[in-house]
Formats: sequence, C-alpha cells, structure tokens
Amino acid sequence: MAQLEGNCLIGQSGGPTAVMNATLAGIIEEALNYEFIEEIYGCLNGVVGILNEDFVDLAAESQQVIRGLKHTPGAALGSCRFQFTKPADYERALEVFKAHDIHYFFYLGDSDSMAMLDELDTYAKADGYDLRIIGLPKTINNDISGTDHCPGYGSAIKHVATTVKEIAADNAAIGEGDYVSILEVMGRNTGWIAAGAALAKRRDFPHDPPHLIYLPEVAFSEEKFIEDVKRVLAKEKYCLVVVGEGLVDEDGNFITLTSGATDAFGHVQLGGTGEFLRRIAEERIGVNARSCKLGIAQRSATHCASKADLDEAYMLGEEAVIAAVDKGETGKMITLQRGESDSYKAETGLSDLSDISSASKALPIEWINEDGVSMNFPFVKYAQPLIQGKVEVPEENGLPVFAKIKGTRVERQLGSYDL
Amino acid sequence: MAQLEGNCLIGQSGGPTAVMNATLAGIIEEALNYEFIEEIYGCLNGVVGILNEDFVDLAAESQQVIRGLKHTPGAALGSCRFQFTKPADYERALEVFKAHDIHYFFYLGDSDSMAMLDELDTYAKADGYDLRIIGLPKTINNDISGTDHCPGYGSAIKHVATTVKEIAADNAAIGEGDYVSILEVMGRNTGWIAAGAALAKRRDFPHDPPHLIYLPEVAFSEEKFIEDVKRVLAKEKYCLVVVGEGLVDEDGNFITLTSGATDAFGHVQLGGTGEFLRRIAEERIGVNARSCKLGIAQRSATHCASKADLDEAYMLGEEAVIAAVDKGETGKMITLQRGESDSYKAETGLSDLSDISSASKALPIEWINEDGVSMNFPFVKYAQPLIQGKVEVPEENGLPVFAKIKGTRVERQLGSYDL
Repeated sequence: MAQLEGNCLIGQSGGPTAVMNATLAGIIEEALNYEFIEEIYGCLNGVVGILNEDFVDLAAESQQVIRGLKHTPGAALGSCRFQFTKPADYERALEVFKAHDIHYFFYLGDSDSMAMLDELDTYAKADGYDLRIIGLPKTINNDISGTDHCPGYGSAIKHVATTVKEIAADNAAIGEGDYVSILEVMGRNTGWIAAGAALAKRRDFPHDPPHLIYLPEVAFSEEKFIEDVKRVLAKEKYCLVVVGEGLVDEDGNFITLTSGATDAFGHVQLGGTGEFLRRIAEERIGVNARSCKLGIAQRSATHCASKADLDEAYMLGEEAVIAAVDKGETGKMITLQRGESDSYKAETGLSDLSDISSASKALPIEWINEDGVSMNFPFVKYAQPLIQGKVEVPEENGLPVFAKIKGTRVERQLGSYDL
Repeated sequence: MAQLEGNCLIGQSGGPTAVMNATLAGIIEEALNYEFIEEIYGCLNGVVGILNEDFVDLAAESQQVIRGLKHTPGAALGSCRFQFTKPADYERALEVFKAHDIHYFFYLGDSDSMAMLDELDTYAKADGYDLRIIGLPKTINNDISGTDHCPGYGSAIKHVATTVKEIAADNAAIGEGDYVSILEVMGRNTGWIAAGAALAKRRDFPHDPPHLIYLPEVAFSEEKFIEDVKRVLAKEKYCLVVVGEGLVDEDGNFITLTSGATDAFGHVQLGGTGEFLRRIAEERIGVNARSCKLGIAQRSATHCASKADLDEAYMLGEEAVIAAVDKGETGKMITLQRGESDSYKAETGLSDLSDISSASKALPIEWINEDGVSMNFPFVKYAQPLIQGKVEVPEENGLPVFAKIKGTRVERQLGSYDL
C-alpha cells in the first residue's frame, strides 16, 4: 500500500462514555507513529466543527494530557448530535478537508453517524478526493450492529452491577420482607444496560439480587409487576428491581411519569420509570420503596470503569489508524469481535459502513428467561468478560484528576458556513 | 482498673453507611485481644435483637469474613430504626444481658440511639448491674453532635464529589450554554452532603462545578433559582446543580414532587427535588435539563469510599473497646476530634451520652457564601481531609466481593418478649 501523505482529523459525537477519550488517545498515539501524517487535528463538537472549521491541534497537546485522556470521562473534543442532512453539508466537509489537507478522518459515534460517514465516503469517492474514513463505535447502549459489543457498554454495566451489589448490602440490612429498592438505568430502546445488572447475580445463588429486571423488550404489565414483587418478598427480605428508562406497555407506548418532553432530535426524554414503579409498590403493594436514578453518572463513572472495556476502547483507536494508514481502508467501521477460543479475547475487525444498520441492535430475546424479569447464562457469558478489571484513576485531594485539552486553535482557511 | 470479666455485645442501627461494618470489624478485632472477654456476640437488627434475644456468635466468624467486613457496605448484623420506648424495654434488655453475662455493649447509631443508650446506662446503674456501654456514631448525614464528624460522611461526599467531577466532564462535552444537570443527594434536615459536593470545585478555578448548591439551610425561591441558572449559563456551557432532598421554602415547608408518604417513624419520605428543579429549568428557562438521584447508592458505595473515613471508622471501633475495657468507661459516645496541628489528624475522644443533642448538628451558616449556593474555604478545610485515599475492594468476576456473616445463633435463655 502506497503511503498516503496528509493530515488526520478526529471527531467525537453522541452521548459520551467513560472510555470514549481512551479511543481518542489511541488514535492520537498511533497516528503520531507515522511521519507522513503531518498534523493531527481534532474537530470540536463533532461534525459541527468540520462545517465551522473549528479545529484544534492535537499533536500540540502534552504527553500528560494524552495519557490523562485514557481515564477521563466525557468527550474531550466536545460532542454533538448533529448529522449532515443536505448535499451542501457533505460538499462543505470536503472543501474543509481539502483546505486543511485532511486525508484521514476518524469519527466516534453511533449508528446514525456511521450512515453519515458512509455518505461522506461516497461523496469523497465521487469527487476523486483521496480520503480514508473510519468510524469508531461508542455507546453505553451497546446497540450498534456489526460489532460484538460497543466500547462504553462494559464500563456502564460494571458500574450498574457494582451499584446493585452495594445497594443490596444496604437493603439486606434494613429489609424485613417489606422493602422494595428500585434502580433506574439508561437504555431508550433496548434493555442492554438493565440486562447487565444481572451480572451481580452469581450463578447458583438464586437469592442474589437483582431479583427483577424490567426491559423494554418485554411488555410491562402493572399487575404482573405487583405479582413479581409479592413473589420475591415472600422469600426475600427485600426486592431489588432494575428498570430501564425505556419501559413500554403492550401497545408499545413508553411508560413514564415525565411530561413527554422531547430533545432537539425529537427523541422522547425518558426517565421516571423508577419513580413510577416506586409509587406502584407503595400505593398498590403497601411496602416501603426507594428509587435511585444513576442518570449520566452511569456513562461517566471512570472511577468504576472496566479495564477490559477501557483497553478495548484504546485498542480500537490504534487499530482504526492502522487500518486506514497501513491497509488503506476507508468506508469502514472498526469493530470488536470475539475470538473463537473458549477464553474471551477481543479482536478487531472491519465492517462496511453501508452494512451498519440504522436500527438498534436488539438484545436477543432468547437471553431473557421465561419469567421475563431475569437473564440466562448465555447473556452472562456474553457480558461478563466486558466488565473485568479495575482502572486506576490518579487522585488529587481525594478526587479523580481528569485531563483537559489545551485546544490550540488551527487557523481557518475558509469563510463561514450556515449550519 | 480492675478487669471486668464478661461477654461483649455489638449492635448496628439506623441507615447503613459504606464504613459501618469497618467499625464492627474494629470492635471485634480489638475485643478478641482480651482473654477475659469470653464471648463476642452480635444482636441482629439492633436493639430489636436484644429484646428478641437474637444473638449471633461473632467470635465464630472466620478471619476472612472479619477482614471482608472492612470493605462491605450495609450493616452486617442487620439494622433497625426501633428504639426502646417504655421501661419494660429497658428492663428486658438488662434481663437479657444478665442471662448472657453481657458486661460490654457497643452500639452504632444516630443521635436517637445515643439518647436510648444513655437511658439504658441509667437503668443499669440503678440496678447495680456492671454494664459498660459505649455508643459509636455513624451516619452519612454528619449531623451527630459531640464529634467533629461522623464515620460514613467522608465516603458519602467523596462519592458525591467524584460523581460531580465525572458528570461535569460529560456535561462539558454536550452543553452549549443551554444545559442544566442536576444531582440530587441525601440529607433530610441538613445540607452536609450537598455541601460536600463543593469539594469538586478547585480553589481558584471559578468555572469548576458544582455551579450551584441548594441546601435546606437556605430558603428556596424558584425565582432566585431561575436567576442563578441564567447567570451561570451566561458564562458556562452547562450548569451543574447539586440539591439536597430536604429543600425547604421560606415557610420551612419541604419542597418535593412526591406524594408526601412517610416512613414507619413519620419522617416525610423526601426525594424528588432533583426532578422538581429539572422541570423548572425546562419549563421556565427553556433549556435541556437532566437529573440524577444517587439515593441509597451514595451511602453504600464502598467502591468509591474514602480511606481516611474507613480507617477512622475502624479506629473508632478499636478505641471504643479500649475505652470500655481498659479504662472502665461507660455512658459515653466515642468521638472523632481534630488534632490541633496544621495537618489533619483524627484523634478519638469521649462525650457523655447525656451531652449528645437530639437535634441535628447544623451545617455552620458562616460556611455558606453570601450567594447562598456555594461553600467557602473554611468548609473545604473542614471536609477535604475526610475524603482522602482510595479503598481497595477485591473483585471476583469484575465485581466487588463483600463479606456476609455466617451468623451462628446463640441459644436463647429466656422466653419471648412482645415488642
């Protein structure tokens, strides 16, 4: 493969994760290995930063910052939910790339972003501009197709399952067969995160929490919930419930106490299922009930991140660069694949961007037990390797120290663009 | 001091903390040093276990379990909110103590429990029964008088302040001057925990979150909240708000969205202030807002516990035994006192149980800045030493391993008692 000289651009999009900056660090550190990649730029706030020509010089960042990114939550370059929607956006992007001699573009995002990258690849090819585009999956929701799992998911469920074990120890001390504890977790369309709480339940320990997991994959019935809780409380001192924010009824409508506000993209702003179940438990079962809602804490808890997840996130960054630079790949998403051996080992692969489904990758229904509120062993076998190991986050004054990029601005070459 | 031969009893009460079992371990390990203390018993579910004669043999627990208790959240002996209320309760307790030759009684609890222990001490003295009673403070709320701070508080605020830093990194990536992030924390009557979030703000970094802290000590005004948020969003990309569950209006009434349910003791079940502020932000300011509610997770997060807190909790257990056994003390609460030196060093002391106020120890008003939504340096100087250091919790399959007592029952000597 002939060396393609030029500059490199990196962007981050969507909801951040605990390990999204580890991927960024992996890209930067690998790209620094190639002398024919002269500049390593970051675009601020994802593709918005391309259209606005808001670039920062990542090669100018200190080693300390790059090292610190490996355990810094959030998206150091800023994120966005914006996608290119019209031909002019793609044309502007190519114009900006040409102005800055960008020939490598690495972009972290969800399924929506992969579709956009695919379109951008098409534009570049039609234009004859030599651009190598690699998408990098990231989401705690684990719902991107084409990859065995998504960086960010392992850390999110390690945090959720750890929290289940911890609040269970508390619940066990105060419950007397009359106590319901509810943990609401994220997951708009799929139950991947709520399912991950099942890792807290050890094999052959049927009394272990979580006792009940409510997933959007299983239609919710208030009467069944009441029966479920009563059944658990008949034999346990407390009933620990995990519920996803995206609970749906038999008609597929979201169940929530909130007013149905929508975000900038028309997504229903969920939340409130925990409080919803708490009220049913108190009012219809007559027990004490408490709820917790981890919210954004579950996607940013580097202090409880999975080392396996973090290492994979970093590796994806490195391998994306190798694929584009050494192997001349473009129009691909770098993926995690499970090796064939009995012991888990993540390997990287590549999927065509055009093959990435816009639909959420479903949690396999066959991994949900018949009771509808617990996960079976194949799920545990799938998820357990993803939460292994602890991440050492340095502390100062008793609190984690995070990296912040200096963000030296790259001079604009073009006029402004109307988003 | 003449040796007092006899058995030792330990109990735990109130809301558990991340380090309450470390205190238990400290008591057990110190008590094992005295040959003339024959048996070390635990009463299940606090004083309920005394009245019901539900004792377990703690000396029969393995070394592994005792070691594991040092990083196990909850209350390994079970907790209770029950207090002795009538003379018959105290008389029954003495009868049970005599039947089991209990001459040392160590009890972990809040202010209410200290008052009960004081009364029990009076009963024992009047009866001429040689009983040495030491109370051990424990609460994440940090509101027990007579001690500089309470074991459990440091770990709770380390977790809260860590969470503030983590969600801030996430917020910074997605905010555009239009984003409000709300973290609801515990604290029914005092703002000690919400104030602890201020540790996330570094000195001389005015942009650091949390930007706004709402405390029960400062009457809440919706109009001021709106002004506060607008002021922050005028200069920051996001506004991170920390709010206690016990927010009150100008008339001293609790502000909450929940239905005003009360627990078994008539305490109003709070919660919902985070969601309450979220709605104001969305509906009246017109910005995106999200809320998290850590709930019980903030009092059980051993994975984010403070080593300083944990070590002090253990030390209090040891010192309580030394006070009772070596020094013949009784009717006292063991306390933490701040040494006089410039560098923080916790020392233990003793307060008369009769001096422990039944009222919550107030967060000093002079530690709250004039803006009513931030803490000043004297608070930081007070709280920062309490969150230092990390606790290593062993993991198995990627999740923390907690200890569970075997709980070998001690044979009952008496008939049953009607609670």
